[in-house]
Amino acid sequence: MATQTKPILHGYFRSSCSWRVRIAFALKGVEYDQLPVNLIKDGGQQLTEEYKALNPMQQVPAVEIDGTTLSQSLAVIQYIDETRPGPRLLPADPKARAQVRMISDLIASGIQPLQNLYVIQKIGAEKMQWSQHFIDRGFQELHSENTLFYTADDEHRISMADICLVPQVYNAERFKVDVGKYPTIKRLNEALLEIEAFQVSHPSRQPDTPDDLRA
Amino acid sequence: MATQTKPILHGYFRSSCSWRVRIAFALKGVEYDQLPVNLIKDGGQQLTEEYKALNPMQQVPAVEIDGTTLSQSLAVIQYIDETRPGPRLLPADPKARAQVRMISDLIASGIQPLQNLYVIQKIGAEKMQWSQHFIDRGFQELHSENTLFYTADDEHRISMADICLVPQVYNAERFKVDVGKYPTIKRLNEALLEIEAFQVSHPSRQPDTPDDLRA
Repeated sequence: MATQTKPILHGYFRSSCSWRVRIAFALKGVEYDQLPVNLIKDGGQQLTEEYKALNPMQQVPAVEIDGTTLSQSLAVIQYIDETRPGPRLLPADPKARAQVRMISDLIASGIQPLQNLYVIQKIGAEKMQWSQHFIDRGFQELHSENTLFYTADDEHRISMADICLVPQVYNAERFKVDVGKYPTIKRLNEALLEIEAFQVSHPSRQPDTPDDLRA
Repeated sequence: MATQTKPILHGYFRSSCSWRVRIAFALKGVEYDQLPVNLIKDGGQQLTEEYKALNPMQQVPAVEIDGTTLSQSLAVIQYIDETRPGPRLLPADPKARAQVRMISDLIASGIQPLQNLYVIQKIGAEKMQWSQHFIDRGFQELHSENTLFYTADDEHRISMADICLVPQVYNAERFKVDVGKYPTIKRLNEALLEIEAFQVSHPSRQPDTPDDLRA
């Protein structure tokens, strides 16, 4: 019975980790409700006692699902993949799974954490150069590791690695990284953005998207 | 036949991500060879063209296993878990798996990346305060999320979360964080360090451990 209740995503339109979860829900065809948490307003709504009771990590996303609350986007995505029907977000073969996790972790552990709000706030005035430096570093690595990403030629099998890529490119553009330096990343990102699951989950189309950023 | 060849771990005695993989091999009873990569000497042996050919991410650990090369420690650990017999490093139940991945990711994405060598080098003189700040931040979160960790009372089931915890506490001590502020973390760490797999994999007992740090 718990699984018949719609999951609730506590997220923020522009949080790349929230976007990852939205893509996974969309690819799996899972309906969910959103309760936006504004990371900026009121000094950060994720810092309230109310939110802390839900997610002690005081970050987004947090997902209420099947009677429990999960956080950390890759843990959430793999839980969705393991418990919901629909296309696999991780391949069945262990080596291929490892490749997908490698690319996902490169982004989720190697690039994104350095642009987390609480890191950027500590860096202060140099946040733009800081972010560019580490995104460029990560994209250089990623560019040599892209063999397993989605291509329009194969079976259109979209993986967790693709789910991590697109929000990271969005972040890169926010920090004015020239993504054109990485033609494979740029091409993949453009191809993925053609897919409905990436469009409906886009930061420009969420309930909490401000009017001036709305697509 | 490929699976009968011993895996080769390219790591560094003090790298917490290398230590994670060593613990996983030890828990699973997998024999492996080590080829040390000195992250400091010669400006960093991970930056050589030879190593880059092995692991374009130019980080440790990298593991040659079953005819392929894997990197990113959590991807490696899950690959080992999925392909080797022995105790499960992730529980079978999807919710419990998600909990283990949440805690693992909190450490592997939320704490450790901010002490990565290439981040610390960019921070420069303030690296000690910087590291303490983010380890404390992470440990405060972790301290409220420890329900799934190993306890001596249950079935002694050690998970990937425990594998992540111990090397992170070791890092915390290197950066002079007062771990005593987090009694549950301290207690768990001490209990885990009593277990052989955590002892044989310890940074003080590796082929590349310098004599003055050797246990």
